[in-house]
Amino acid sequence: MRFARLGPVGSEIPVALHNGEAFDLRSIAADINGAFFAADGVAAAKAALAAGTLPAVATEGVRVGAPIARPGKIVCVGLNYSDHAEETGATLPDEPVIFMKDPSTMVGPFDDVFIPRTSEKTDWEVELGVVIGATARYLESPDDAAAVIAGYAVSHDVSERAFQLERGGTWDKGKSCETFNPFGPELLTADEVADPQALGLRLWVNGVERQNGTTANMAFGVNHIIWYLSQFMVLQPGDVINTGTPAGVAMGIEGQPYLRAGDVVELEIDGLGRARQTLVQA
Amino acid sequence: MRFARLGPVGSEIPVALHNGEAFDLRSIAADINGAFFAADGVAAAKAALAAGTLPAVATEGVRVGAPIARPGKIVCVGLNYSDHAEETGATLPDEPVIFMKDPSTMVGPFDDVFIPRTSEKTDWEVELGVVIGATARYLESPDDAAAVIAGYAVSHDVSERAFQLERGGTWDKGKSCETFNPFGPELLTADEVADPQALGLRLWVNGVERQNGTTANMAFGVNHIIWYLSQFMVLQPGDVINTGTPAGVAMGIEGQPYLRAGDVVELEIDGLGRARQTLVQA
Repeated sequence: MRFARLGPVGSEIPVALHNGEAFDLRSIAADINGAFFAADGVAAAKAALAAGTLPAVATEGVRVGAPIARPGKIVCVGLNYSDHAEETGATLPDEPVIFMKDPSTMVGPFDDVFIPRTSEKTDWEVELGVVIGATARYLESPDDAAAVIAGYAVSHDVSERAFQLERGGTWDKGKSCETFNPFGPELLTADEVADPQALGLRLWVNGVERQNGTTANMAFGVNHIIWYLSQFMVLQPGDVINTGTPAGVAMGIEGQPYLRAGDVVELEIDGLGRARQTLVQA
Repeated sequence: MRFARLGPVGSEIPVALHNGEAFDLRSIAADINGAFFAADGVAAAKAALAAGTLPAVATEGVRVGAPIARPGKIVCVGLNYSDHAEETGATLPDEPVIFMKDPSTMVGPFDDVFIPRTSEKTDWEVELGVVIGATARYLESPDDAAAVIAGYAVSHDVSERAFQLERGGTWDKGKSCETFNPFGPELLTADEVADPQALGLRLWVNGVERQNGTTANMAFGVNHIIWYLSQFMVLQPGDVINTGTPAGVAMGIEGQPYLRAGDVVELEIDGLGRARQTLVQA
C-alpha cells in the first residue's frame, strides 16, 4: 500500500494511492497517524480499496503534504554511512549516534524550506525515513524490529552546520529549525519493500547530483537501529526515525556550497518517489 | 490560575484548582493542551470559574496526571546552574546548551519512574518547567518572552548518566527513557509568578535532602532561554522547556548514590507544589 495526504497545510486528506489514482480514506480514518497504525488502519484501507468503497479524489494542482500526521517524535541516527562519516571528519561510531528533531519541523515534500535567519551553513541530507507502526519497548533482537515498522518514506534531514557544531551543546540546535524535515511524497508500507538495505538514495541541488548512495552502506541497518533505540526509549506508532545520510553533503564538498535562497533541492529513494523543495529566506 | 489533570492515564479530566477544590473544565476545554492555550483557554477558565458554572469534582484518591497533555516537544537546557556545572566537571557554557526529551516521557507527578533495564546510573534533576502558551518565532529580545509563557510546573528531568555520557553521540539517549519526565502536580499561570528567577527548588531521595537551589542562580534566565530557543526553532503552545537543575545530583555526590528500585524521590518548587515518585525496575 501507498499512502499520502493531500490538501492545504493543516487540512490534508488521507488517501491511498493505487494505479495512478488517489482514494479518499476519510470514511475509515481521521488521518494517517499513530492511532491509524495502532488500529491496523493499513489492513482496513487495503480491504476498503479492494471492496471499491473509497471515492477517488482529484490530485491535479493539489498540494502534497507529509504522508503522515505530525509524529510524536523524530529520532535521527548520525554518521550512519561510512562515506558520510569520512567526509565530515568523524570516525564511524561503535554504536548508533542519536539525536532528535522537533516533530513540528515536518512539512510536505514540495513545501518551501526556510533558511534560518543568521544561517550561513544550511545543508542537505537525503535519508530513508522509517515510520513506526506498533509500540517497541526493549525488543529482544533486531529480528523483532520488522514487526513494528509501518513503512518507509523519503526524508530530508535539513541541517544547519554552524548551529549544530559550533554553538555549544548537542546537535539538536541545528536540526530543529522551522521546515527542516520535508517528508514524503508517499509512505510505502513495509510489506512492499523487499529489502530496506538495498535502496538507492539520490539528491540534487539545482540539478547537480550531490548525493548518490545506497542503504546497503549503512553502518547500522534499519532493524538494528530500531532494536537499539527500543533499549533507550519507547517507540510508538506514528514516530519517525531518520536513518542517516550517505556522502555528498555541502559540509564535505570542496568549497562547501551551502544552500542559499532560491536553490532547489530534489531527492528520491528507489520505490519511494521524488521530492522537490525550494529554499527561501526565513 | 492553577490547572491540573485528574484521573487514570489517558483519561485525565482537566480541572481548575481554587480554594482547595477542583472544578471540571470539560464544558469549556477538551484538555489542557496547545489548542487550549492558543485559544486563550486560561481566560475562558477564569471567567467560568468566576461565574460559578464549573462543577466541582472529587479529588480524594484520584490519580494526579501531568497538568498538561503530551507536549509537541520537550526542550531542555543543560548546565544552566553554575553549581551544577561545577559538580559535573563541566564549565559554564557561553550560550545555552540544548537537548531534547521524547515528549512521551511525560508522566504524572506521583507516577512510578522506571529504572531502565541495564541502567546503573539513573539520576535525579529537579527543574523549573516552563509551558509555552503562544507561538514564538525569532523573538526580538528576551523582553518579548514573557508574552509567550503560559505558566510553570515542577519538572523532573530524570537522566541516565551512562546512556547520556558514555554511549556515544548526544545526550538525548540518556534523557528519553520511559517515564523520565514526571511533571506537576500543578500548572501555575505566569501572571501568578511574581519573579520566576526567585524560586527555591528542592529535592529529596528517601527523605534526605539532595538538591536545594534557587532559580536566581540560573546562568541563563527563563526569558533569555525562550528568546534564544526561538532563534533556532519555533516554540508552540503546549511545548515544554526544562530550564536546568541546580547542584546535588547523584553524579556529583561522593559515592554517586544513583537511584535504585524502591527509592522515593520528592521534589518541590516554591508555589508550584510537591511531587513524589517511587523508582521501580523496568
